[in-house]
Amino acid sequence: MVNAGAMSGSGNLMDFLDEPFPDVGTYEDFHTIDWLREKSRDTDRHRKITSKSKESIWEFIKSLLDAWSGWAVMLLIGLLAGTLAGVIDLAVDWMTDLKEGICLSAFWYSHEQCCWTSNETTFEDRDKCPLWQKWSELLVKQSEGASAYILNYLMYILWALLFAFLAVSLVRVFAPYACGSGIPEIKTILSGFIIRGYLGKWTLLIKTVTLVLVVSSGLSLGKEGPLVHVACCCGNFFSSLFSKYSKNEGKRREVLSAAAAAGVSVAFGAPIGGVLFSLEEVSYYFPLKTLWRSFFAALVAAFTLRSINPFGNSRLVLFYVEYHTPWYMAELFPFILLGVFGGLWGTLFIRCNIAWCRRRKTTKLGKYPVLEVIAVTAITAVVAYPNPYTRRSTSELISELFNDCGALESSQLCDYINDPNMTRPVDDIPDRPAGVGVYTAMWQLALALIFKIVITIFTFGMKIPSGLFIPSMAVGAMAGRMVGIGVEQLAYHHHDWIIFRNWCRPGADCVTPGLYAMVGAAACLGGVTRMTVSLVVIMFELTGGLEYIVPLMAAAVTSKWVADAFGKEGIYEAHIHLNGYPFLDVKDEFTHRTLATDVMRPRRGEPPLSVLTQDSMTVEDVETLIKETDYNGFPVVVSRDSERLIGFAQRRELILAIRDFLVSSRKRMF
Amino acid sequence: MVNAGAMSGSGNLMDFLDEPFPDVGTYEDFHTIDWLREKSRDTDRHRKITSKSKESIWEFIKSLLDAWSGWAVMLLIGLLAGTLAGVIDLAVDWMTDLKEGICLSAFWYSHEQCCWTSNETTFEDRDKCPLWQKWSELLVKQSEGASAYILNYLMYILWALLFAFLAVSLVRVFAPYACGSGIPEIKTILSGFIIRGYLGKWTLLIKTVTLVLVVSSGLSLGKEGPLVHVACCCGNFFSSLFSKYSKNEGKRREVLSAAAAAGVSVAFGAPIGGVLFSLEEVSYYFPLKTLWRSFFAALVAAFTLRSINPFGNSRLVLFYVEYHTPWYMAELFPFILLGVFGGLWGTLFIRCNIAWCRRRKTTKLGKYPVLEVIAVTAITAVVAYPNPYTRRSTSELISELFNDCGALESSQLCDYINDPNMTRPVDDIPDRPAGVGVYTAMWQLALALIFKIVITIFTFGMKIPSGLFIPSMAVGAMAGRMVGIGVEQLAYHHHDWIIFRNWCRPGADCVTPGLYAMVGAAACLGGVTRMTVSLVVIMFELTGGLEYIVPLMAAAVTSKWVADAFGKEGIYEAHIHLNGYPFLDVKDEFTHRTLATDVMRPRRGEPPLSVLTQDSMTVEDVETLIKETDYNGFPVVVSRDSERLIGFAQRRELILAIRDFLVSSRKRMF
Repeated sequence: MVNAGAMSGSGNLMDFLDEPFPDVGTYEDFHTIDWLREKSRDTDRHRKITSKSKESIWEFIKSLLDAWSGWAVMLLIGLLAGTLAGVIDLAVDWMTDLKEGICLSAFWYSHEQCCWTSNETTFEDRDKCPLWQKWSELLVKQSEGASAYILNYLMYILWALLFAFLAVSLVRVFAPYACGSGIPEIKTILSGFIIRGYLGKWTLLIKTVTLVLVVSSGLSLGKEGPLVHVACCCGNFFSSLFSKYSKNEGKRREVLSAAAAAGVSVAFGAPIGGVLFSLEEVSYYFPLKTLWRSFFAALVAAFTLRSINPFGNSRLVLFYVEYHTPWYMAELFPFILLGVFGGLWGTLFIRCNIAWCRRRKTTKLGKYPVLEVIAVTAITAVVAYPNPYTRRSTSELISELFNDCGALESSQLCDYINDPNMTRPVDDIPDRPAGVGVYTAMWQLALALIFKIVITIFTFGMKIPSGLFIPSMAVGAMAGRMVGIGVEQLAYHHHDWIIFRNWCRPGADCVTPGLYAMVGAAACLGGVTRMTVSLVVIMFELTGGLEYIVPLMAAAVTSKWVADAFGKEGIYEAHIHLNGYPFLDVKDEFTHRTLATDVMRPRRGEPPLSVLTQDSMTVEDVETLIKETDYNGFPVVVSRDSERLIGFAQRRELILAIRDFLVSSRKRMF
Repeated sequence: MVNAGAMSGSGNLMDFLDEPFPDVGTYEDFHTIDWLREKSRDTDRHRKITSKSKESIWEFIKSLLDAWSGWAVMLLIGLLAGTLAGVIDLAVDWMTDLKEGICLSAFWYSHEQCCWTSNETTFEDRDKCPLWQKWSELLVKQSEGASAYILNYLMYILWALLFAFLAVSLVRVFAPYACGSGIPEIKTILSGFIIRGYLGKWTLLIKTVTLVLVVSSGLSLGKEGPLVHVACCCGNFFSSLFSKYSKNEGKRREVLSAAAAAGVSVAFGAPIGGVLFSLEEVSYYFPLKTLWRSFFAALVAAFTLRSINPFGNSRLVLFYVEYHTPWYMAELFPFILLGVFGGLWGTLFIRCNIAWCRRRKTTKLGKYPVLEVIAVTAITAVVAYPNPYTRRSTSELISELFNDCGALESSQLCDYINDPNMTRPVDDIPDRPAGVGVYTAMWQLALALIFKIVITIFTFGMKIPSGLFIPSMAVGAMAGRMVGIGVEQLAYHHHDWIIFRNWCRPGADCVTPGLYAMVGAAACLGGVTRMTVSLVVIMFELTGGLEYIVPLMAAAVTSKWVADAFGKEGIYEAHIHLNGYPFLDVKDEFTHRTLATDVMRPRRGEPPLSVLTQDSMTVEDVETLIKETDYNGFPVVVSRDSERLIGFAQRRELILAIRDFLVSSRKRMF
């Protein structure tokens, strides 16, 4: 046989990195990529293009196009992600209203759009316009009474079941990867793992359609997490159009990191928060260049969504708020309490959800995903309808809870007893005693809170697209609003107490319950996901005011501490563990306190270490070694005797090298 | 002599990294630090603390304190930087007004504060209140007429000269490092260079005081760059309080990066933009942990400044704006033109300023810094006073140029001819023909623009604290506002032209000249500093609207391209080169196209390469080698014959190792 000197030694192994492989980029499914090789291959590509570009004008133009393809991909991702987010918002709006009734003038109008077109509605009856017909009005010409209520109730449940059934069937038949939030898998993919088809075109299409269906069905889930998955699918699609990215798994992951940022950007209307989310939560390799490109993609996506204007308020999200009153130092106490609540909720949710998902994996339950979805949808719809706070869509609920009670607010939550001597002011309404409506709302909110907490645990992880940002925020917002109203009433009735005396005079607007709702939402989201800075920045972009940074930070940090005390894992890490993905967190700090020699002991009585030696091995020896063992790589040493390490050869590299060698030697023979 | 086997070979050199050095952290002045050693020393420190923390409760508490010291330093930096920025703003406000007159009720009140306290002023005469006395009114009881004008003129010049003289004398006598913007030096320091005293307490004190003086003197410079230097001085001060940072130059640089972010955060009221500025423009080593801490410091600093509320408008900067009308696609053309102007201004400024600074360094001019400052101040004051747009402070000018003409605007720039049939609307004023005031303002702005362009070139680089963000922005804002008014009048008078017909109906508010001013400011700042993303984010935080991202991006990118076409260096890099600092940009991409063997040739007839050999060298040999050559390090090879490289030893390490060795062998002898 031939002497294998040509392929031994670390120097020669290094040379392989410079040579183009015959089947590069074709990692197998469920394998991990080699970051160094991908980087080195990209440098190679770049070197070739640069040297070629001096040859002709055409090559020069091609090199320019190549340099700009990164920005082009970002532009395309931003445009598509923004458009999809806008379409999803519009469709969800229409289909959520479809559960209640239909617009006579044009069936594709949502309740609000239908009433825009009718001229006769004044501000007071904006919810009652003749063109919008509830199902009871349309079917039995009856808008009041028990039978009409039952008919509407039934229609609500029927539509919800129909949407959920459609969604779970589509997912099962066409794209099984479209289920879940997708963030645990994207984290794993970005760390270098390969899951073929997870970011494919079918997944993109089916996830978009089913996302609309499940959100409209009224299940306790959000569209924010899945939007990140959708944006990453867009990123994968566009990167396959440019050879720079399609042929290099490392570069492709840079694009995906930026796409994740664009996804959060449109999900929360927070472009900067999106980039930081990508950086803090999902990305693995994030060079500075990717940071700028992520910004660009996130801004383009937000601007596209802003141009579509799905909510008709020129804001990117339904729950944008502006507060007018400051907060006081003494309020930090309830804010921190909300942080503790958020941390406890995070722990409870992660523990129960993981336990339930494990049961689903191991028992018969996992075999009937359609039935499970139908059952959960039915329970959700039956319980949700009677309570006004669970009947509507969750983001509308969050929006109402976040809002401050202005003079024009008609919500039940703002049913305060007005001072008859006071004319209706436009702004800066002082604290007032709560009316009947507020007390009713408190009861309903408490029931809604318990229901949300329980049902979300069972919903997240079913075989449908489901995000948990929105349910978590809703839980926090409900708890926060209740605490806020409590503090407000306490301050109103007892403004002579020592803690209130300094900052809350009678007739002043001391407490903003909406701010408590927002702080609670941040705390609960933080407890579940363990985000800190990106969470605060997202919330900062939602309120658009520096003033509320301190309450948000206090709650987010408390919630993280409390949750970390019970277990270090966030929900995404927990799901990664549950599914057994090979994920190694790059942000973990490993302080190396022991040396290898202290813990490594030569194993007696076992076969010696499988190694390659520098000079004395033949190709046959190497082939035998590969066949007889299943290690992923072998150390290269000087000789069996000295065992001085000079390098490391991967199994994959060896197989490729031997095949290449055989092909070329066969060529030489003929 | 002893055989030096113990100190040769790369393996043994590695061991040195683990051992504490007797004089660690004591790099000499104007030396570059060893990043790897600093990092390894920090790991060491951490390892020790963690192992100790298990010994007793006190050690455990100490380890907790150590872990939290990073956040504590950030909190302190944020608080101090925010406070200093607030104090500087208040002092500048008062002293700028002092050039015009004085408040009778309390001399420490600025014009605006003085008139707040007087009850009798209505909205119309807010600028004329009896308690505020111009110098002519106070000294000769005359407020109108030529003699009063000349007296005020003289007082203006005198105060300006006094402030400038005080500033330059303080800098010369107490802290020569306090001059300039400081950003080039901070970039160099953060890349690992040591300049003792550059971030010292004296520099902090003197720079803060003189910054107030020079800005008040009316010179064409800004406080934004120096504020970054001031914040870095705060960072250096607080990091010297914690042994974790004071004893490790690498860790100290992490704190300084965060401090730079806090500086920009308070300079522009843009906490997120500040962090990105630190990342894009000044930092060298920026791990993820530092990113979060920078955010924290920037937010605390902004919140502190917000609590001081120096401008009384609950905004962080004077030139915060909110626009209400959208922009149209056709407007991208003038925006891109402004980008071209910004790029040209950047090139012109950098070329001329560097040429002038070189002349200052090489000719006699550099020997009379006080005289130079006095002369430039005198010229500035004499030329600036007659023109209302140069008389006031530059940030007030920018604020006026950015502002949209509302119904209550009394500025000359808003002197449009109102339609008599129209009642005064509150918002959304349609385009109107320009009045006499606007035409006068255009002339004055053009003259002010030329003056600013010329004088800024001579001002930046004098021996006083001087930033160029504000002058650059002023140049751009003036050019932009003029273009904006031009386009507005064109659209008003020719709304039947094909380019206007689609988007500008008569009686509509088509063009916002203030937006043009903002775009121009961004373009000019981009041309000078070559920032892109952080610039757009800073401007985004100033306007608080996603809508204007596209115009700002278009202008910033155009300006960078145009400026880059004439020379790749931004102003900071140019000054680093001019001063010969050893700065290697970590963000430059070096594509390695050649191998060392292709370009390295053995030099014939010259002495052989100075190397250490693995086995055959004595301590004496090493000492001789160190004495006879002045290289910073030596390659370690197996032997003279094989010259196989096994490592590299630094001169510094060798000297320390030999000293240690001699000390210990002497101990052994006695």
